[in-house]
Amino acid sequence: MAEEIVAGSADFPLKRSREEEENGVYAASTVSVETDTGKEADGVSAVIPGWFSEISPMWPGEAHSLKIEKILFQGKSDYQDVMVFQSSTYGKVLVLDGVIQLTERDECAYQEMITHLPLCSIPNPVKVLVIGGGDGGVLREVARYSSIEKIDICEIDKMVVDVSKQFFPAVAVGYEDPRVTLHVGDGVAFLKAVPAGTYDAVIVDSSDPIGPAQELFEKPFFQTVANALRPGGVVCTQAESIWLHMHIIEDIVANCRQIFKGSVNYAWTTVPTYPSGVIGFMLCSTEGPAVDFKHPVNPIDANDSQKSRPLKFYNSEIHTAAFCLPSFAKKVIDAKAN
Amino acid sequence: MAEEIVAGSADFPLKRSREEEENGVYAASTVSVETDTGKEADGVSAVIPGWFSEISPMWPGEAHSLKIEKILFQGKSDYQDVMVFQSSTYGKVLVLDGVIQLTERDECAYQEMITHLPLCSIPNPVKVLVIGGGDGGVLREVARYSSIEKIDICEIDKMVVDVSKQFFPAVAVGYEDPRVTLHVGDGVAFLKAVPAGTYDAVIVDSSDPIGPAQELFEKPFFQTVANALRPGGVVCTQAESIWLHMHIIEDIVANCRQIFKGSVNYAWTTVPTYPSGVIGFMLCSTEGPAVDFKHPVNPIDANDSQKSRPLKFYNSEIHTAAFCLPSFAKKVIDAKAN
Repeated sequence: MAEEIVAGSADFPLKRSREEEENGVYAASTVSVETDTGKEADGVSAVIPGWFSEISPMWPGEAHSLKIEKILFQGKSDYQDVMVFQSSTYGKVLVLDGVIQLTERDECAYQEMITHLPLCSIPNPVKVLVIGGGDGGVLREVARYSSIEKIDICEIDKMVVDVSKQFFPAVAVGYEDPRVTLHVGDGVAFLKAVPAGTYDAVIVDSSDPIGPAQELFEKPFFQTVANALRPGGVVCTQAESIWLHMHIIEDIVANCRQIFKGSVNYAWTTVPTYPSGVIGFMLCSTEGPAVDFKHPVNPIDANDSQKSRPLKFYNSEIHTAAFCLPSFAKKVIDAKAN
Repeated sequence: MAEEIVAGSADFPLKRSREEEENGVYAASTVSVETDTGKEADGVSAVIPGWFSEISPMWPGEAHSLKIEKILFQGKSDYQDVMVFQSSTYGKVLVLDGVIQLTERDECAYQEMITHLPLCSIPNPVKVLVIGGGDGGVLREVARYSSIEKIDICEIDKMVVDVSKQFFPAVAVGYEDPRVTLHVGDGVAFLKAVPAGTYDAVIVDSSDPIGPAQELFEKPFFQTVANALRPGGVVCTQAESIWLHMHIIEDIVANCRQIFKGSVNYAWTTVPTYPSGVIGFMLCSTEGPAVDFKHPVNPIDANDSQKSRPLKFYNSEIHTAAFCLPSFAKKVIDAKAN
């Protein structure tokens, strides 16, 4: 059984087996509200009445809750449960399979970091692929680069795209850029059909590795991404929390080290409404022109797009800082990366 | 009414008045558990059965919850409610007035950062004062410095000290260092009685500015701290969350800028069990030998204490990174600081 390494006192060796998670049920969030019809919403049970509580085997024993003003949408796509609600202090919230994907208040941190960490690290990106990211927020950030000519996005769930366009116009605005082509389908199949060396950058904006995004955390997927990248091309993938998922991160780092012959790095940032308040990213480059992710060569915060729509979170200083890890995480990641 | 500046879309101007907070009730957390006697614990109401939920006017509309294995202590001191419980995944948890102060799993981040950010920034600290910090965790970290001869701590609430010694031995171990003198009393009064220029560093490890710690966020207190410091001495104070409390931070920065004629800086770190997942620190120095907080001159991670008891969180890289702020926070803080 793989054990999770956690911070904390040595005499408190908190351990969790991978099997426990893999065999776990899907994220089982709970919400109890009166819907417009005055009846309790289907398929949900009471925790804090009037609050959405995020409970999942991915973060056992803890739950973050947001107060609900109104549920705006509840649907079941071919892939997952989709919900949108108006929260009392975080704006509108998008929830997939019971897990918060974004809130209007803090989405800037995630979208700006997952996009600009890779794209500021290479000169003049021209072709970019986004896997997942159906809400359009990553597209909005990718579109800031005038050098880019082609932005493909492959999202498996059309309902996420439609719901984002309806309820999150400031996020879905990314779809309005004429360089964007939306492909609704499986990201793994899409990547397999891509001619080798097509993209300068691939951004994998996935949900957690239980549910539809599971394959996006596995070695064959990373191999397919590497093939789709030009020499010296870069990938940035959502890579969970150093506080909660060191054993998942350890595996991702080990896999990436085998596949990406350029550089392999882990970065992280704060997102209050994600479990443990942080989320990480794997940043890798293929063999070819060297990429030094820690020292951005293509600073977007000096770019013209800043004038009309300033960045809220990202800047060049926080880019470099994102690669500095707490000692407990650094020890594990460095051991796998070298 | 002062408005809070928050990240998020421009058409979602989340605002909260300062009056709302000042007039707010005290932190009103809720917990529902069976105690050893089989009866429901006194003074607590049912929310999520078996979970502790942290609800407060300091972070309206959201709540973090931890699953309780067992309540170990509940008391009422002259100053606040004190509770300790065994959580299912964060180890033991200390709660004051319904707000989580530390968990065994993530206390390393807070204690190491609030201590080593100031002490690594000056050469050879000799005399250090801790205000608050009754749990002893900051003392444990201060004690790593062999140059230090005298460590005073002034904690208002003896119950916090006693409870920590009983339930958190790996934290309260700080009290065992022979250089430590505990003063039980009011930190403000203690500081007023200190001869000018006594300390090389003052660390203010306070709870939130509603409740007993309120004065520790006000201008007269900072003036008293400045008087107690030697020229070129440093202070580090707990300074809330950039995601939740920018208007409090704005005031603290403005006050410090008037009082501390050396440097004035804001740094921050991740603590999963604090609201929004982050906590910040004000780091200031008095007029005298210049202090460049961003470039530590006294690296503790190269120190001998590392061998017997390695740092879990802090290192020199994360020290420097802690001063890099997201754009939305940088804009506000830089405007006040310069």
